[in-house]
Amino acid sequence: MTYSAFDHPYLSGLLGDEAVAAEFSAAADIRAMLAFEAALARAEAEHGVIPSSAADRITEACRAFSPDVVALRRATASDGVVVPELVRQLRAAVGAEAANHVHFGATSQDVIDTSLMLRMKAIAELFGCRLRDVVAVLEECDRQWGFRPLMGRTRMQAAIPITVSDRLRAWIEPLLDHQDRLEAMDRDLFAVQFGGAAGTLEKLGDKAEAVRETLAEELALVDCPQWHSQRAAVADFANLLSLITGTLGKFGQDVALMAQNGEEIVLAGGGSSSAMPHKQNPVAAEVLVTLARFNATLLAGVHQALVHEQERSGSAWTLEWLILPQMAGATAAATRLATQLASNITRLGGT
Amino acid sequence: MTYSAFDHPYLSGLLGDEAVAAEFSAAADIRAMLAFEAALARAEAEHGVIPSSAADRITEACRAFSPDVVALRRATASDGVVVPELVRQLRAAVGAEAANHVHFGATSQDVIDTSLMLRMKAIAELFGCRLRDVVAVLEECDRQWGFRPLMGRTRMQAAIPITVSDRLRAWIEPLLDHQDRLEAMDRDLFAVQFGGAAGTLEKLGDKAEAVRETLAEELALVDCPQWHSQRAAVADFANLLSLITGTLGKFGQDVALMAQNGEEIVLAGGGSSSAMPHKQNPVAAEVLVTLARFNATLLAGVHQALVHEQERSGSAWTLEWLILPQMAGATAAATRLATQLASNITRLGGT
Amino acid sequence: MTYSAFDHPYLSGLLGDEAVAAEFSAAADIRAMLAFEAALARAEAEHGVIPSSAADRITEACRAFSPDVVALRRATASDGVVVPELVRQLRAAVGAEAANHVHFGATSQDVIDTSLMLRMKAIAELFGCRLRDVVAVLEECDRQWGFRPLMGRTRMQAAIPITVSDRLRAWIEPLLDHQDRLEAMDRDLFAVQFGGAAGTLEKLGDKAEAVRETLAEELALVDCPQWHSQRAAVADFANLLSLITGTLGKFGQDVALMAQNGEEIVLAGGGSSSAMPHKQNPVAAEVLVTLARFNATLLAGVHQALVHEQERSGSAWTLEWLILPQMAGATAAATRLATQLASNITRLGGT
Amino acid sequence: MTYSAFDHPYLSGLLGDEAVAAEFSAAADIRAMLAFEAALARAEAEHGVIPSSAADRITEACRAFSPDVVALRRATASDGVVVPELVRQLRAAVGAEAANHVHFGATSQDVIDTSLMLRMKAIAELFGCRLRDVVAVLEECDRQWGFRPLMGRTRMQAAIPITVSDRLRAWIEPLLDHQDRLEAMDRDLFAVQFGGAAGTLEKLGDKAEAVRETLAEELALVDCPQWHSQRAAVADFANLLSLITGTLGKFGQDVALMAQNGEEIVLAGGGSSSAMPHKQNPVAAEVLVTLARFNATLLAGVHQALVHEQERSGSAWTLEWLILPQMAGATAAATRLATQLASNITRLGGT
Repeated sequence: MTYSAFDHPYLSGLLGDEAVAAEFSAAADIRAMLAFEAALARAEAEHGVIPSSAADRITEACRAFSPDVVALRRATASDGVVVPELVRQLRAAVGAEAANHVHFGATSQDVIDTSLMLRMKAIAELFGCRLRDVVAVLEECDRQWGFRPLMGRTRMQAAIPITVSDRLRAWIEPLLDHQDRLEAMDRDLFAVQFGGAAGTLEKLGDKAEAVRETLAEELALVDCPQWHSQRAAVADFANLLSLITGTLGKFGQDVALMAQNGEEIVLAGGGSSSAMPHKQNPVAAEVLVTLARFNATLLAGVHQALVHEQERSGSAWTLEWLILPQMAGATAAATRLATQLASNITRLGGT
Repeated sequence: MTYSAFDHPYLSGLLGDEAVAAEFSAAADIRAMLAFEAALARAEAEHGVIPSSAADRITEACRAFSPDVVALRRATASDGVVVPELVRQLRAAVGAEAANHVHFGATSQDVIDTSLMLRMKAIAELFGCRLRDVVAVLEECDRQWGFRPLMGRTRMQAAIPITVSDRLRAWIEPLLDHQDRLEAMDRDLFAVQFGGAAGTLEKLGDKAEAVRETLAEELALVDCPQWHSQRAAVADFANLLSLITGTLGKFGQDVALMAQNGEEIVLAGGGSSSAMPHKQNPVAAEVLVTLARFNATLLAGVHQALVHEQERSGSAWTLEWLILPQMAGATAAATRLATQLASNITRLGGT
Repeated sequence: MTYSAFDHPYLSGLLGDEAVAAEFSAAADIRAMLAFEAALARAEAEHGVIPSSAADRITEACRAFSPDVVALRRATASDGVVVPELVRQLRAAVGAEAANHVHFGATSQDVIDTSLMLRMKAIAELFGCRLRDVVAVLEECDRQWGFRPLMGRTRMQAAIPITVSDRLRAWIEPLLDHQDRLEAMDRDLFAVQFGGAAGTLEKLGDKAEAVRETLAEELALVDCPQWHSQRAAVADFANLLSLITGTLGKFGQDVALMAQNGEEIVLAGGGSSSAMPHKQNPVAAEVLVTLARFNATLLAGVHQALVHEQERSGSAWTLEWLILPQMAGATAAATRLATQLASNITRLGGT
Repeated sequence: MTYSAFDHPYLSGLLGDEAVAAEFSAAADIRAMLAFEAALARAEAEHGVIPSSAADRITEACRAFSPDVVALRRATASDGVVVPELVRQLRAAVGAEAANHVHFGATSQDVIDTSLMLRMKAIAELFGCRLRDVVAVLEECDRQWGFRPLMGRTRMQAAIPITVSDRLRAWIEPLLDHQDRLEAMDRDLFAVQFGGAAGTLEKLGDKAEAVRETLAEELALVDCPQWHSQRAAVADFANLLSLITGTLGKFGQDVALMAQNGEEIVLAGGGSSSAMPHKQNPVAAEVLVTLARFNATLLAGVHQALVHEQERSGSAWTLEWLILPQMAGATAAATRLATQLASNITRLGGT
């Protein structure tokens, strides 16, 4: 059960990240889907679409509910999505009267895409903190060794002397920009998805927009008309993940090259070798390059999924499920490793 | 001389676009590089770095200058960039006194990246107009047939009836967003590159920033510190190009599927077949899908180039040169074909 | 702990495959790595490099050995590979005298790449069987409905009538070719990796080749000189995986389009919808398209890893670890779903 | 007319290759398409499908024919393929009696895919020669400096000493394998495409196979049933192109790293800089890395095109047209630059 190095029993030592992994657990997904169902019930009650007592009952049931995961797995095999079975189980838990009011007017995609947005939002906040950490350590490097000389290198050749600060600037500046963009996404991009069977919220009549607005508020997501076949937000988030790993990959590549040259950097830590026990490998630096190339590769797949035909493409949508968690996992590892690598620098530049 | 379908003698009938192709001509690149050299001379003169008379002479020479392209080609073979030879030729044209003031304090990357930004800016404006055109035609479709019924389709199956307006909204909305972002890039993203040999503008002393600011103003580009090894702006522009072709690819895919179903759309035009002269093929619709998948693929390469080692990576930089023009060419074709396809719709939806 | 849909608690119902997943378990990897260490000891004993008694002791210890996975995880974090700690633990288990003969002359990459080959070989055999299954069901379709008329469609438009057999041929033929190639790889491609610290087997002197030959025989792998920085075999296997999912993706896309047209295919099974309980979705057909696009995307990353610098690139190598298991997982799901989908066909073509 | 660096007025000095470019000229494509039409006529005459006099007239006309390219371009815009207009013009040139026998039983895809195969075959032969050249120069390096010591480097760190021969082996061996595969493709992969409107050669009755066999013979291509919706051969060729550039990219990366370290290699040639005239840049080495990453990226697009729906996908097919020439252009540049780079080595290893 370890297809992914991000949650592999031992590879995760190198490539994993527990905080981010938690957002991709089945438990987190179910929690977010139940949050959607409960918030939807409350929003519909507020606007008189379903009785308040039903909303209370649904909210309460969602809080206590623990699904039969084996049945979810079986149903996903035939339905292609987990929601029909989850809703069936939830209705059973809610019980007779209120059961019919569960998931009213919603469709699978509303639940799954909103759960995705809730978790992406949480991850984006986490990545924002991580970038702050990397920047803080690099700025400390600048305070300590920024004034020192370093050979500027262009096209893999010594060019003219620069300072450590000059090199550090190219590592730090893009990270500040990426932080700003994570924050901007927090305000603008993570939006509720609510459209019903084919996007028209046909069961809610003239209360559709009001319910959606309240639903967004309940979930602390941006309110906007349904976007189920418009996937630019997903692609944009993926683009930012790849920018982050790309920037950190450049940092890693630079460190690996400095370590090879030998005199420009001193690193604590570093990995050992089974054949040469004395050797110190700049493992984290190399892996930052790996993660950059991995996300760059995967980004293409998220963009393929922009060709999302008609009102809902099972094919394009499922492609996102296969790729986005991997990209987030890579970004988690990269931010963690970059902080670790920067912290392990014990000298930069010459004297 | 026809590696690319975008400028192929006959394939360009389908896939070409003359206005955008013009920005990728050698002539346009040379013009932009000379604009940089002339603007740099004027900026340096304004801040007393070089004599005003030299700046006048250089500006004048740049206006009249026509390079020896065969020599440029030969020199690019060994230098990997065109600039050393271009500057050599330009110095010869400028003549003895002012010759030494040509390209003062600059490096190849300053010239090439700034030329790229100048042309990307022009192209972004063009794409903004094109998107307006597509939107205008689609909005006209909405006025004419928006009220008509259409079968909503999810997972390749009939779901519930929607209206033509509902489908059109998913085509139009992202285009409006892409337009906004093209405009935002015009304000924030297309920036002058000016850093000198290793990014420190070491030859300009304390006048470095002032010269750069004036240079940016002269060229109507954003002013910011050199970014030669920070390629996120390039990747962001590529991301937007792929979002545009992705959105138009969804439109194309939807139209191709509607055309296959047969009753939901009537199209004028359409291609003929060498074996079945009566058949009408939704060629433009299909090609929109092609262009979306093409740009999605290429985007990965631009992100690979984020791992731009040290002060200048010949390898990562050259990779951008191979990819960006192709992505722009695909976007040009897509915006042109989308307008054409939308204009060929003579009925949408049922009755 | 569920980054990957291939082993996700409920998404694996749709996208998982237990037989293939087993080859990617940590247990399978450890088993294969121990098989390498035991076979190496035996090979080295056979050629007088280490004492026979040591080889016996190592073989025995490998059989009984169960590593401390927590320690493996911790060590992988700093070493970038699991092998140094695994060898340390194994040496402790083997005990004093023979301990020094464990892993003699080998390096981490020998163990990990050989383990990969052993598992790829097992998976290739599995995929060969799966393809036989798909072909068998499709050939049965041919026997039942091959003679029936079907509208040939080119460029998303009805062209001229063909038969169901004509369409089936385009699904079946490439699968037969892929089967042949899996078998050819079984003979030619899955090779032992054995090179020592920098590929020269410097500790084995003139017995190096003989030991390697015996080692390959013990493991039933192809014998060839070390290939640790030559990754074409890995890329070729990935290419074949993507050809398989591509061929099955075409099958899926065709079925989804036939299902949309409605009269050309009748499918049993099919997924339900949370909003429209009556609707039958061709889920498996759509997911085959997803898996094709996923593998096509990832293949680019395996080819990026061909730029494997010097004697061993931590960066390029780790990239393979992130990608190959995902590609195998996608191929596993695709072969399983294709058989299921083909078996669910209850009619093809018109009357 | 310069979207592609491979045929750009000055960038082609670095990235172009005239011999390969010639195969992608419109003239070469037209020549190959006319070769198809002439060979088809002869094959159909041989089996009594059309009169011998018509075949003679068509062969003669094809030899002399020079199409109206402006009209081809205009027609491609609406038809999506050049063939209907080319056939129309050719029929006019052939004249009244024989005109109806031109292109009999064939369709656009037959002409275009066969032309592609003819040109791929020519290119494959060329690449075979080029690889022989690279190998020859590298083997000469081995004879001269193979015995010299070199520091083996793993994970970007000095490991243990190896010899120059050890490093060279990792450059040469994969090239020998790629040569073998180019030759195998020459025998097995480059096949005639002949299927008619929907792949059934319905107009040729029981003579279909015999005509196809003769046609293949006339064109010196492999004979096999039509494969218009089975694109594995195209993907396989693309895979091999990317393996070649990947192998050469590893060579380039190694050389660039050796040049940075400074003492392990001495190179003649090398590019100059506009800012630092004394500096020698290992331009060819860097560009080899570029070309490897470029082809790795593009390969994903060719594999996306495996999802070739129904009897002919305009969308997937056009995607190949955009990508394959670029990949061939990159391979051409890489083989040329690798020979040049290897020839510029004037010392390898220490003393």
